[in-house]
Parts: sequence; C-alpha cells; structure tokens
Amino acid sequence: LPDTFVHEIQLRIRYGETDQMGTFYNAAALDWFECGRTEALRAAGMAYREMESRGVMLPVVEANVKYLGKASYDDLLTIRTTLHRPQGVRIRCDERITIAGTDTPIVTGFTLHAIVDARGRPIRPPTWMLEGLHFGEAG
Amino acid sequence: LPDTFVHEIQLRIRYGETDQMGTFYNAAALDWFECGRTEALRAAGMAYREMESRGVMLPVVEANVKYLGKASYDDLLTIRTTLHRPQGVRIRCDERITIAGTDTPIVTGFTLHAIVDARGRPIRPPTWMLEGLHFGEAG
Amino acid sequence: LPDTFVHEIQLRIRYGETDQMGTFYNAAALDWFECGRTEALRAAGMAYREMESRGVMLPVVEANVKYLGKASYDDLLTIRTTLHRPQGVRIRCDERITIAGTDTPIVTGFTLHAIVDARGRPIRPPTWMLEGLHFGEAG
Amino acid sequence: LPDTFVHEIQLRIRYGETDQMGTFYNAAALDWFECGRTEALRAAGMAYREMESRGVMLPVVEANVKYLGKASYDDLLTIRTTLHRPQGVRIRCDERITIAGTDTPIVTGFTLHAIVDARGRPIRPPTWMLEGLHFGEAG
Repeated sequence: LPDTFVHEIQLRIRYGETDQMGTFYNAAALDWFECGRTEALRAAGMAYREMESRGVMLPVVEANVKYLGKASYDDLLTIRTTLHRPQGVRIRCDERITIAGTDTPIVTGFTLHAIVDARGRPIRPPTWMLEGLHFGEAG
Repeated sequence: LPDTFVHEIQLRIRYGETDQMGTFYNAAALDWFECGRTEALRAAGMAYREMESRGVMLPVVEANVKYLGKASYDDLLTIRTTLHRPQGVRIRCDERITIAGTDTPIVTGFTLHAIVDARGRPIRPPTWMLEGLHFGEAG
Repeated sequence: LPDTFVHEIQLRIRYGETDQMGTFYNAAALDWFECGRTEALRAAGMAYREMESRGVMLPVVEANVKYLGKASYDDLLTIRTTLHRPQGVRIRCDERITIAGTDTPIVTGFTLHAIVDARGRPIRPPTWMLEGLHFGEAG
Repeated sequence: LPDTFVHEIQLRIRYGETDQMGTFYNAAALDWFECGRTEALRAAGMAYREMESRGVMLPVVEANVKYLGKASYDDLLTIRTTLHRPQGVRIRCDERITIAGTDTPIVTGFTLHAIVDARGRPIRPPTWMLEGLHFGEAG
C-alpha cells in the first residue's frame, strides 16, 4: 500500500499577497499550503470539509517554511502537496512551490497536523477516514 | 440622550498589509474598521465578544470605503469610529482613518450591520445591549 | 462598440477566509473582487501586470460591498466581473458573487479605480490600454 | 556585550484572524511574529523601516511555528520576541506567544532572516545597523 499521496494544483499570486519588498508576503505561503492540502485531500478521496462534518479535524500543530526565491503578483504557482499516511495521531503534509513551468522551488515546507475529534481530543484516524484517503489501515 | 458614540484608536500598518504598489492593500481597510469598532464597542460599554456570548451578532451587511491617500508600512494610523444608535434591526459605524498627527483622511467609510440572534434572524437590539452601549432605549 | 466586458471565474473559499461566525470574513470579498478583475482584464485583452509594467496603475479609490448571504469553507464561488469602459480618469468594475450553480448572490458590489501614471497622477487611459482592452477610444 | 535583545508587545486577536475551527487561523501567527519583531527592532534602537530606507532588508528565509493552544477573537496576546545578534549574513528572531496574564504559550517559533542590500545580495550587517541595534560589533 502506498505511504504517500502526491497532488499538484496551480494558483496565481493575488495582489494582496504581495508586499512592498516586491515579492509575496511570507504568511501567504501558509495560505497556499492550505490550498494545496485541501485539494490533495479531495483528490485522495475525502474532502476536508467532509472530515469536519463527520467530526474529525486536522488542526496544524507545526508549520515550517523555507523561502528560497521571489515571486510576483500574477505569477502562476505550482503547489505540490505530499500527504503522508497518518502516524499515530498525526498526519504530515510536505509542500513544494515552484513558479509554474520551472523546477526551481521558491518555497518548501511542511505542516504537521493533529487528528482530533469534535472536542479537540487527539484520536487515531477512523477507518472511514483511512479508507476514504486510500491509505489503507494505519501502520 | 446621545445618538452617537465616538472613539479613537491607533495602530501601525503591518508589513503584510502593504502591497507592491507601495501603499496598503485595499482590503486592509476593512480589517482596520473592524479593529476600530471592536474598541469603540468596548469603550461604549459592551465588548462585542460579550454580545456574541449573549447570543447577539452584528454581521456586516454593507461596507463602503473611500481611499483618499497613501500610507506605508509602520505608519501610525488614527482610526476614529462613530457608532450610531441602532435603528430598527441595524447599526451603523462610520470610520475615518488618518495618519496620526495629521488631519487628512487616507480612508473614510462605513459599515452597516444587521443585529441578529444566534440563528441569524434579525432582531431589535435587546435592552441589555442598549443599556450596555449607553445609548438608552431604541428610538 | 461595447461599453462593458463581462467575465466569470470560479474559486473556492479558503480556510483562512472563514471566521468564527461560520461564514467568510467580510474583508475576503475585496480579495475576491481583485481576483475577479485580474482575470477579467486578462480575458479582455490586457493583463493588469502588463499595464503596471507599462506604467499605468489602477488603484482602488472606492469600494462598496453588500453582503447578502453566507458561504463556507470549500464552497465553490462564481465571481462575475463587469468591466466598464473608462470614463475620464476612472474605471469601474461591478462584482457579483454567487455559490456556483446557484443564482442567488451572496455578495454584490463594485470597485472604482483611478487611472494613474507611475507617479500616481491621474491620466486618461492611453490608446494602447483601450485598444488592448477592446473598448475602442474613450468616450 | 549582550547576544540577545528581548521585547514584549501586546495585541488583540482580530475577528478576521479567527476561523471556523473557533481559534485563530494558523497563518496569523506569522503576522504576529512580524508585529513582534517590528517593535523589538524599534525598541532595540533601529526601526526596520529605517533599515529599509538605508538599503538593508531582512527577508524571511525560514519560519517555524509550533501551535500549542487555542485563542479566540479579542483575546489579548503577549508576544515576546528575542532578537539574536546577527551571525554572518543572518539574523534570527525567536517568538513566544501567550494569552496575556498567563504563562502558557499558545505559539512558539522563530524566523530566520537574510541580511541583504537593496539588490537582494546577502551582506554582513553594516556597522550603523549593529550600533543602532545595541549589539556592538558583529562576531
């Protein structure tokens, strides 16, 4: 069974995501990571909104971002998200952002998520979630 | 009884609120309006979070912003909020933003808010809310 | 010659655009307006980044937003932008946002833009801009 | 000579910084880090805007955030920033955020910054910058 699921999306840098330094503002990377993993989860078989509606949330417990290059308003970005099979009560997403059509990353990083129930208590991923995500049983 | 309550706060423009045009991004004005009215409501006698905890919310139903001048990262702004006495099921906040120490507005505008209960149904302001806000009975 | 150019895009509500009231935060509407007009200008024949690189900017001088309904994280929105032929030193964009597949607007509004040169001085739109936008000569 | 400079500020969580999970949205932490280091640099003796005006910029090259607790709209936060003496062409800021009046961090993390000139080339910190920041000569 596969241990990761990889998905790519493209999005354009919004004007409001730029700053006076002439590149994107650093916090925008976390917004883009969120866009990437939302679509990766959907493509893997279970939209995050469906998880939430069934009582499972994935709050971010750690985020790491490396800023490797500049990008401007209206640049088309490719965001490649790698979902990892849940480990215990955690799930990790690796992110790599390039300007579309190039292979030079401008941002790399990851987010680490707790898997929690509606009360915020850490849980192991329910079977329906693992099956939905095409990751099989948890290790 | 007074029909308006006026309150001023100061805040600095954040780096992420600038854009590549060398001024603040237009949507930031709505964030600043929200900061202004949060503090105006608190100063008038009832913090908005307390209203929400008692089941009354004030969603924005209309916002208008006029952009009259530029401002940069780290500029200190004065935000003057004028709360109007609720009219029926609505309450209006006028906003005027200057660079602190000047009297030339860089932004003016208003937000108009519905007064709604926890289910989102329009209501006339409860007595506790009017008394808390020092506006007396509704007209 | 046509006086308006109409264009539609779709985008999903980001998690960071929601707020604790269970709908989108009001300032997000201005971000979506910007996304809509960026794509409308491109579709009309001249990307805004190209205008900026040729020394013409369109700063927002007024924005008006009416909030008519709720929407949630991950909802797919249709943003319909109507560009108006420039009038003097101004250009106006009307915006209408629906949840995709419905015809009930959740947000309507407009932005009014100055047409300015690199020094920020109001100008009438250059011929290359009007021709690029397929609006012919200014009225 | 001291190797670090520690400074604290307080700010309130904005409504737009909350999300539908009932806490702050994860990217807001990077905005707060920026607020913290802006005020720490000013308190240390040299505002960041002054550095930029003299041709030195500090773009973020890495950010790390650990999310340890929840916080709500209108909560008053204490942001404690620890500036480290520049090392070579880098400067590091550690951040620790608590709800004011408590000692339990809800966010910890750091940002690592390149020191660059106006063309974006890495440089060792100029003497005026080190003297301004009260860190003495670079190691």
